[in-house]
Amino acid sequence: MIKVAILGVGTVGSAVAEILKRNQAVIQARSGKKIVPVVGVVKDLNKKRDVDIELTDDIESVLNRDDIDIYVELLGGVEGPHQILKRILKKGKPVVTANKALLAYHRYDLQAVSNGVAIGFEASVAGGIPIIKALREGLSANHIKSIQGIMNGTSNYILTKMMHEKVSFEQVLKEAQELGYAEADPTFDVGGYDAAHKLLILASIAYGVHGDPEDILIEGIEHISQEDIYFAKEFEYTIKLLAIAKRRGSQVELRVHPAMVPSSKMIAKVDGVMNGISVVGDAVGETMYYGPGAGGEATASSVIADIIDIAREGKSSPMLGFKNPLEESALTLMPQEEIKTKYYIRMPVKDQKGVLATIASILGSCDISIDSFLQKPGVDDKDRVTLLFATHTCKESDVKRALEKINDLEFVLSRPNMIRIEE
Amino acid sequence: MIKVAILGVGTVGSAVAEILKRNQAVIQARSGKKIVPVVGVVKDLNKKRDVDIELTDDIESVLNRDDIDIYVELLGGVEGPHQILKRILKKGKPVVTANKALLAYHRYDLQAVSNGVAIGFEASVAGGIPIIKALREGLSANHIKSIQGIMNGTSNYILTKMMHEKVSFEQVLKEAQELGYAEADPTFDVGGYDAAHKLLILASIAYGVHGDPEDILIEGIEHISQEDIYFAKEFEYTIKLLAIAKRRGSQVELRVHPAMVPSSKMIAKVDGVMNGISVVGDAVGETMYYGPGAGGEATASSVIADIIDIAREGKSSPMLGFKNPLEESALTLMPQEEIKTKYYIRMPVKDQKGVLATIASILGSCDISIDSFLQKPGVDDKDRVTLLFATHTCKESDVKRALEKINDLEFVLSRPNMIRIEE
Repeated sequence: MIKVAILGVGTVGSAVAEILKRNQAVIQARSGKKIVPVVGVVKDLNKKRDVDIELTDDIESVLNRDDIDIYVELLGGVEGPHQILKRILKKGKPVVTANKALLAYHRYDLQAVSNGVAIGFEASVAGGIPIIKALREGLSANHIKSIQGIMNGTSNYILTKMMHEKVSFEQVLKEAQELGYAEADPTFDVGGYDAAHKLLILASIAYGVHGDPEDILIEGIEHISQEDIYFAKEFEYTIKLLAIAKRRGSQVELRVHPAMVPSSKMIAKVDGVMNGISVVGDAVGETMYYGPGAGGEATASSVIADIIDIAREGKSSPMLGFKNPLEESALTLMPQEEIKTKYYIRMPVKDQKGVLATIASILGSCDISIDSFLQKPGVDDKDRVTLLFATHTCKESDVKRALEKINDLEFVLSRPNMIRIEE
Repeated sequence: MIKVAILGVGTVGSAVAEILKRNQAVIQARSGKKIVPVVGVVKDLNKKRDVDIELTDDIESVLNRDDIDIYVELLGGVEGPHQILKRILKKGKPVVTANKALLAYHRYDLQAVSNGVAIGFEASVAGGIPIIKALREGLSANHIKSIQGIMNGTSNYILTKMMHEKVSFEQVLKEAQELGYAEADPTFDVGGYDAAHKLLILASIAYGVHGDPEDILIEGIEHISQEDIYFAKEFEYTIKLLAIAKRRGSQVELRVHPAMVPSSKMIAKVDGVMNGISVVGDAVGETMYYGPGAGGEATASSVIADIIDIAREGKSSPMLGFKNPLEESALTLMPQEEIKTKYYIRMPVKDQKGVLATIASILGSCDISIDSFLQKPGVDDKDRVTLLFATHTCKESDVKRALEKINDLEFVLSRPNMIRIEE
């Protein structure tokens, strides 16, 4: 028998206990072991919960038990769980965690501390989708060329609604909050931080690359307007919040931002709260993984898959996919300003002579060449038009420089907005 | 060092040797071992090959070598490779195979013979997509409710072309043969047999269910016409060759046939030669896996992933996902006649009074109720119309009985065609 302790019995923890019970027979047949959740740790014992395991608010007593075989960490937070996991691993006990923030900061430290003791974290990225396993084991023969992921359901729900209905970001956000798809403070989701944590985890497995969330380019979807969507549709793009990892020589670029994606691509078809992750390998080509990125039972599905892997025994895939460091010189993060891609730029301007020429000349002086251009007349204000540009591939720093210059122009009515284009 | 012998050096075998060399550094970092293909077995040494390993036509000498750590079987055929794999496994040596036909017939025997020695077969289903790993390990917490897969690229290429261009099956097949997407004798692919082999492998992992290809419902795409596609578009369906496994109580239905799928579903968006497999679990909900189902490098990606898993050591996921048989009574195959789904029926009839009433009465007498109905006038022949029906859920045997009766009617001009509808 495998005894499991669940640290943190919220939505996911309750689902882990429930599924271990409901599917006990099939889980036992698959793992060869009876797996039993024996105790759950909660902060407040008085809070009513619909869960059928012993509960305690004394985490120390659970950490000190010798009969627990696997600890499941669902506490939330970063530094607290970090210390707890280290304690457990040093005792030689396996842990399973869904804590992406913890891993975004301390994954390499945990790998070092674990010393071969299993750390399962399938649930930390894209909920129920087994993307860690796919990347770490299924695609292990490949040099990973790129990862493009829709890994935040809240943002994808909002963008999908904005694409299908002519509503503003603010309106859809309010609706999403009422439906429980968005938090009261949505910054972590719509600002791209949640996706960035997940991206760092995947990038470690794909590339062995180091980095904290603060090191990478993160932009949210707050500035997307219906004018951007108008342009996107005109050029057969779909706007998605993408978490992107790309190999460029000995560097890896990591970035999270809204992007224009050709609507014909599979990743563009991932709608609503669902997640989808496209991985391109040098041998396999493009593969994509689709499914629910959140929710109690979906996330518990991944937590329990990790428990079963540990129960099956002897499994020794290295935590972050590398048994040894890469022999070739390690890959490093590409500085944000060096990133090269295509850009879409929107700016509202006064409808007067010479505007286009001035802007085109600024773009040219910053080494930016224009691929396509649209002009959209103002609806209420006839003296105002919106200019929409798409550029050829150019450098992030050049685009930022150009936007600053354009923003200073007297006839530019508000800050130009930019969305990167991913072909 | 891990020494690999490749039995069969065709497209896939050459790619395995090539990628093991090209990606040697990253594979060594991930697996912790230097993995080297040391010998390849071919039938004809005189045939020119662009591959950089020692070749021999003496398979016995390779099977008798004691220094080979892993055998890769890419020979093709069923009984020959079966005997060879048994010999290797009995010597305690791990094998990796892409041979779906072999596994469709002998998977349980190989599992029994292996006695814990590793058998990798990720490449046997859906080429480069790590679907075996996803199902066996990633979703192991779930009762699998259903699998719906597009697992034959040739058929999907043909159907995609037929949906997008107004061309006949015969025309597209010819084109596919010229492009090398279809064999000179395409029966194995377009007849559904290839997909059926793969389905049986997945069904073993999902359900522990036994069965040979001869035991399950297999229909090909040869009878799909532009009239069917007209109906499909009218009702927002896409026609796909689906391999379906569904749990129904203590039974499992397995079937391969063209199906009308709502165009909004992700599986309907898998176009061209690509593969896609949707798996629904009771905990996770729907997940989908997408990628190249064939091709030398894509298939080699899966072969090498299995080699790396073995090299990482200690990995002991049971071959077909179950360490022990299911404690609850084993699941059995549902007889074909018992299958229940919705049906679309097409029949060309003489344009005369009473036709519709007669047919409706036959359908009613066979317990089939009609959900929707379309009548399409003949183009060249004004006395001929095509009737298109969609039914509510009914029984396979009832539909077959009704079609026999309808076929006997004097005003029915040719055999009615039926396509199952999968919502």
